[in-house]
Amino acid sequence: MTTREDGRQADDLRRVTIEKGWSAQAEGSALVSFGSTKVLCTASFTNGVPRWLTGKGKGWVTAEYAMLPRATNSRNDRESVKGKIGGRTHEISRLIGRSLRAVVDMKALGENTIVLDCDVLQADGGTRTAAITGAYVALAQAIEWGREKKFIGQKATPLLDSVSAVSVGIIDGEPMLDLAYVEDVRAETDMNVVVTGSGKFVEVQGTAEGAPFDRDELNLLLDLALAGAVDLAGIQRATLEATALDGAGA
Amino acid sequence: MTTREDGRQADDLRRVTIEKGWSAQAEGSALVSFGSTKVLCTASFTNGVPRWLTGKGKGWVTAEYAMLPRATNSRNDRESVKGKIGGRTHEISRLIGRSLRAVVDMKALGENTIVLDCDVLQADGGTRTAAITGAYVALAQAIEWGREKKFIGQKATPLLDSVSAVSVGIIDGEPMLDLAYVEDVRAETDMNVVVTGSGKFVEVQGTAEGAPFDRDELNLLLDLALAGAVDLAGIQRATLEATALDGAGA
Amino acid sequence: MTTREDGRQADDLRRVTIEKGWSAQAEGSALVSFGSTKVLCTASFTNGVPRWLTGKGKGWVTAEYAMLPRATNSRNDRESVKGKIGGRTHEISRLIGRSLRAVVDMKALGENTIVLDCDVLQADGGTRTAAITGAYVALAQAIEWGREKKFIGQKATPLLDSVSAVSVGIIDGEPMLDLAYVEDVRAETDMNVVVTGSGKFVEVQGTAEGAPFDRDELNLLLDLALAGAVDLAGIQRATLEATALDGAGA
Amino acid sequence: MTTREDGRQADDLRRVTIEKGWSAQAEGSALVSFGSTKVLCTASFTNGVPRWLTGKGKGWVTAEYAMLPRATNSRNDRESVKGKIGGRTHEISRLIGRSLRAVVDMKALGENTIVLDCDVLQADGGTRTAAITGAYVALAQAIEWGREKKFIGQKATPLLDSVSAVSVGIIDGEPMLDLAYVEDVRAETDMNVVVTGSGKFVEVQGTAEGAPFDRDELNLLLDLALAGAVDLAGIQRATLEATALDGAGA
Amino acid sequence: MTTREDGRQADDLRRVTIEKGWSAQAEGSALVSFGSTKVLCTASFTNGVPRWLTGKGKGWVTAEYAMLPRATNSRNDRESVKGKIGGRTHEISRLIGRSLRAVVDMKALGENTIVLDCDVLQADGGTRTAAITGAYVALAQAIEWGREKKFIGQKATPLLDSVSAVSVGIIDGEPMLDLAYVEDVRAETDMNVVVTGSGKFVEVQGTAEGAPFDRDELNLLLDLALAGAVDLAGIQRATLEATALDGAGA
Amino acid sequence: MTTREDGRQADDLRRVTIEKGWSAQAEGSALVSFGSTKVLCTASFTNGVPRWLTGKGKGWVTAEYAMLPRATNSRNDRESVKGKIGGRTHEISRLIGRSLRAVVDMKALGENTIVLDCDVLQADGGTRTAAITGAYVALAQAIEWGREKKFIGQKATPLLDSVSAVSVGIIDGEPMLDLAYVEDVRAETDMNVVVTGSGKFVEVQGTAEGAPFDRDELNLLLDLALAGAVDLAGIQRATLEATALDGAGA
Repeated sequence: MTTREDGRQADDLRRVTIEKGWSAQAEGSALVSFGSTKVLCTASFTNGVPRWLTGKGKGWVTAEYAMLPRATNSRNDRESVKGKIGGRTHEISRLIGRSLRAVVDMKALGENTIVLDCDVLQADGGTRTAAITGAYVALAQAIEWGREKKFIGQKATPLLDSVSAVSVGIIDGEPMLDLAYVEDVRAETDMNVVVTGSGKFVEVQGTAEGAPFDRDELNLLLDLALAGAVDLAGIQRATLEATALDGAGA
Repeated sequence: MTTREDGRQADDLRRVTIEKGWSAQAEGSALVSFGSTKVLCTASFTNGVPRWLTGKGKGWVTAEYAMLPRATNSRNDRESVKGKIGGRTHEISRLIGRSLRAVVDMKALGENTIVLDCDVLQADGGTRTAAITGAYVALAQAIEWGREKKFIGQKATPLLDSVSAVSVGIIDGEPMLDLAYVEDVRAETDMNVVVTGSGKFVEVQGTAEGAPFDRDELNLLLDLALAGAVDLAGIQRATLEATALDGAGA
Repeated sequence: MTTREDGRQADDLRRVTIEKGWSAQAEGSALVSFGSTKVLCTASFTNGVPRWLTGKGKGWVTAEYAMLPRATNSRNDRESVKGKIGGRTHEISRLIGRSLRAVVDMKALGENTIVLDCDVLQADGGTRTAAITGAYVALAQAIEWGREKKFIGQKATPLLDSVSAVSVGIIDGEPMLDLAYVEDVRAETDMNVVVTGSGKFVEVQGTAEGAPFDRDELNLLLDLALAGAVDLAGIQRATLEATALDGAGA
Repeated sequence: MTTREDGRQADDLRRVTIEKGWSAQAEGSALVSFGSTKVLCTASFTNGVPRWLTGKGKGWVTAEYAMLPRATNSRNDRESVKGKIGGRTHEISRLIGRSLRAVVDMKALGENTIVLDCDVLQADGGTRTAAITGAYVALAQAIEWGREKKFIGQKATPLLDSVSAVSVGIIDGEPMLDLAYVEDVRAETDMNVVVTGSGKFVEVQGTAEGAPFDRDELNLLLDLALAGAVDLAGIQRATLEATALDGAGA
Repeated sequence: MTTREDGRQADDLRRVTIEKGWSAQAEGSALVSFGSTKVLCTASFTNGVPRWLTGKGKGWVTAEYAMLPRATNSRNDRESVKGKIGGRTHEISRLIGRSLRAVVDMKALGENTIVLDCDVLQADGGTRTAAITGAYVALAQAIEWGREKKFIGQKATPLLDSVSAVSVGIIDGEPMLDLAYVEDVRAETDMNVVVTGSGKFVEVQGTAEGAPFDRDELNLLLDLALAGAVDLAGIQRATLEATALDGAGA
Repeated sequence: MTTREDGRQADDLRRVTIEKGWSAQAEGSALVSFGSTKVLCTASFTNGVPRWLTGKGKGWVTAEYAMLPRATNSRNDRESVKGKIGGRTHEISRLIGRSLRAVVDMKALGENTIVLDCDVLQADGGTRTAAITGAYVALAQAIEWGREKKFIGQKATPLLDSVSAVSVGIIDGEPMLDLAYVEDVRAETDMNVVVTGSGKFVEVQGTAEGAPFDRDELNLLLDLALAGAVDLAGIQRATLEATALDGAGA
């Protein structure tokens, strides 16, 4: 196995940290780092649901993703200044929302809404996977907050499982885990995999950036991703179990 | 194996037709049907490339997807009237573009641009997979047109392979091929698979709509998709080989 | 009288066809062709009216017109991508809406709304006149559908008359009927005339593209238009009387 | 003949005044009143043409129409605040531009651009016809300014004729000239007619607001409009011949 | 003390005129001139308040500022055409609204809304200060109108004081009052001061355009502004006391 | 003197920290805190200037301000989603840009552009003053970076002075320094003062939120602000002199 630019083995995650309760304002929050990629995730809890859901006894979870203009190596114009949201932003926001909804029992959540905001403060590849991984921690806190405030039933368990995400890719023919930006741009195939704490798939998105890939390559990538997801789930669990310096309401 | 609402077996495609050269204006065009889903695909060939590519000796292929407001069972407001493009539209446009670029040798295309427009005239599930499948036919025609007009070198072979797409999903625990709308809304897992004529993956996008899915289910879905892709590639080949009632330039 | 590029006499319509019930989704629909100009017209029937009309016992009919990006000889950017609707689109949408409202008794329609979508699939001059002519057929079907569904009273006759439209123009000093695109760009004067089945004017829009026109020229153009409108009304009637392969709800 | 609410005969214009050179900033300007309708028209002269016209030796004339939010009896939201221009505004801007271009010889204008801005300060019906009538005066001044500044050849005569506009309509079965707002809302048929100084038509736009109209009614309306246009041309001529308190550059 | 380009002393206002009741449509209006700067101010009175204020027994006053495209020496594109409002427009609209709200007792106004529209017809420096000064007159009229129409209690006195505004600046080291455009562009420091009739500050906005300014300079500028405000308050009072040629409702 | 909610004296700043070089991507950066208010400031250095400045031998400095949606106690919709930038955002962006330009010698900067992005991660009053204070540090770093990279002359001193900002206000009749959010909403008068390191004013923006204020109150507020500015200038100096963990290019 090759050594990578930053010294990792092909199946190594970058250093992953999750700072829980970073925000004093939000009901849940986490500043997550995958190496130099840093994403601030906040969860905003509202009692009530959008009009189209009212009266159905079910909750709603949604997400928005964005990047600060200078999160990247060269500055990008703000989408607010351009007056429209780009396709990439839309796509990632939708992915995060779907990923989190997959582990929430909307009936148990009751008529409450949780909005996850994932703002990339610094980008070095894997921003969407870091966002999902951090957003889960913010979500779990917000649900806990909702239970304490009695918006959620005391016996209800809206969280069915944990969820995290990681990228994998094939570089120079070799499958690798958790690509940094310099790796990402060279990858022939790039895959984002969203996995539950119990090891099932929520989302598999593989794209041939260069040559199309075959079934064996797909399988190797999935092996790597599932192994990485086990580590991420462990970090999430440890973060949530640590004595909290919880934000909002604390 | 269950019989489906429309009488198909689990591994049956719907009736697929591709009417080549539907448009008298475009350099390539195809009206593709997957059952009741009908998508008009046009390819617009321009000599020259966007500014950011100029002088690199390479071409560009991109795509835009949209739905007529009453393509669906109830009317949707036009995105032009709303003044912005929705996330779903963005996501699918990007998917179609990536899928087609995966089978084009941009050096061989030379400094030419091909824009694929995929407009859904009637929607009954699988609009993005029909769009990719039809857009390939329009693309192939447009490349042929470019060669005849000498914008592309006579010996150049910009098309590396064909490409088609099909949806698969798990319904009541059973994997099924090419979901119609009524099936799509019931699917626990929904996957769109883009495959080359030689059977390699260009894109794999699987999403758990209900319960997360495991590796075995993923494998069954990929089996179905690869089999369906063989049929679609055959239909594409037959369409392109038929004596053309070619559109533009004919 | 001169012979035209496509062999027509000055007072000939192009070949006009109306395929009723083209859409399986809409309550009314027609694919109308004026020569190579093809417009898909759908009518969406909704029980209820916009808020500003509520409780007045009257219905509402409105229309939206748009062109596919490659309906024309060179590709136009999508208005959804540009984020705004152009003046020409606005102007034509408003014309179609006014033209259809002129033949509808809103009281007899009751508190129901019908939206006509006219999407130009292929453009070769006269798209607005084809749109009005086809939209009338879609409208008539949708009203019939509303009666069957009992949203409209069984004795109510919301349609006061039929309505169609045709362009006329002066080319090289000679008045001509139903201009194709190559004629339209050369016309000194260009007029769109919307006429009821009983031969009255709903809208007369004449524009001097080159030299201003005098009253005699205006009169010759109106003569041509009224004669063409008789033929169009006949085609509409025949289409609606034909045993239907009706779309939605059929 | 009926007497109207404001005491006019059916074939009377309202009191029309044109204050030439109202603006000290613009190359041409006119504050035009048709009764209580007041429109400020400015002409902005630029040496040079839009890119698509460059190098063809021809000029360009275009127009923009807008209303102040409280020009009307109840306040309308600003289009700048809504972020988009409405269909009516688009339609009228285009009409004004076409009307003025009809009397300009673009070759004689040379590679110069004139933008007419018509801002309705107070609205009481007939704002588009007042705008065209006033814009012609501003245009004529701006052309004179361009000649003085030597942007236009000393022997060139870019103005082929004058142009004015007036509304006519049928109210309670009677044709009337130059409708005030209270008349306009009651009119069964409403027509705007744009006429050159030599009495030819530039634009005829008749709309059945109530019952469709027949050819006799159309003819009566055109008679009224042509007579009114003679008066308007006289007022324009007198205004332009008066010793100028000219604006910009004076 | 230096004499200025237009012959004024450093502490002279330009000729200020306020034409009350300019608009026949609005509940209050004023055409205000500060030299060549002309702003049309209208006040639109609505019984009722925005939703977020409903039921609190308080009124609302807000303002919008805009410039006609050719108010200035060279033409600016319309914000409606650009589809967005610029920062300067936003900033001035907010300033006008705050300034007027400072002299209104919202309880005494009752649940009524007054919108001030300030449209610059001609610009020569000081447009925002002219707008505030004129808008106060329109506001006072609209409040009087509301009282006559019994929307405001007969004993209520919603106007706590009058309010006007004036610019001051340092040019070539010398403080000057009410800058014309040619002065404004040369000013090292530019300050807009909003003052009540009783001589208190509502808003002080000083900006160093060139070198930062010190406390002494600030004090000299404030002296000038307060003196100018006394004159403006006098002109406002005289205008409102003059026998009215009042607009709306008169 | 009263003690405040957080125990401060009326003339105390909150705890102010500036973390220099927070971003590994930007040429200059600072994470600044004024109590719980946290703003991430990045400076993006580009060699070259906007087109309108090209060839004049001068540089350009501009700024954009924004808030994360959940920086505040309840969530605000993103401006990118709304498709337009609000008035407050515009106003503050412009203030920051002007404040920084006041201490930059554009000739000495040469044809280089520096964009300051100030993104509020957490808001508790005084976000604009924290932004200016932090942006100065990021700006100073970026200029240093430009000098090292030889885009700026080695002897050039583009920074003329330092600049910081602080809010002051009158609460219950007492002037106070550096208002936290709970104080800000209660303030009768609210003033933001931008001051250079040498104690001169760059910007003074005072607003009567409740009763108008008199000259004595204004003077007391300015005294407080100037004292606070001395402390802020000291913190900025210490931050910049500390051995750097500099970001980009380090």
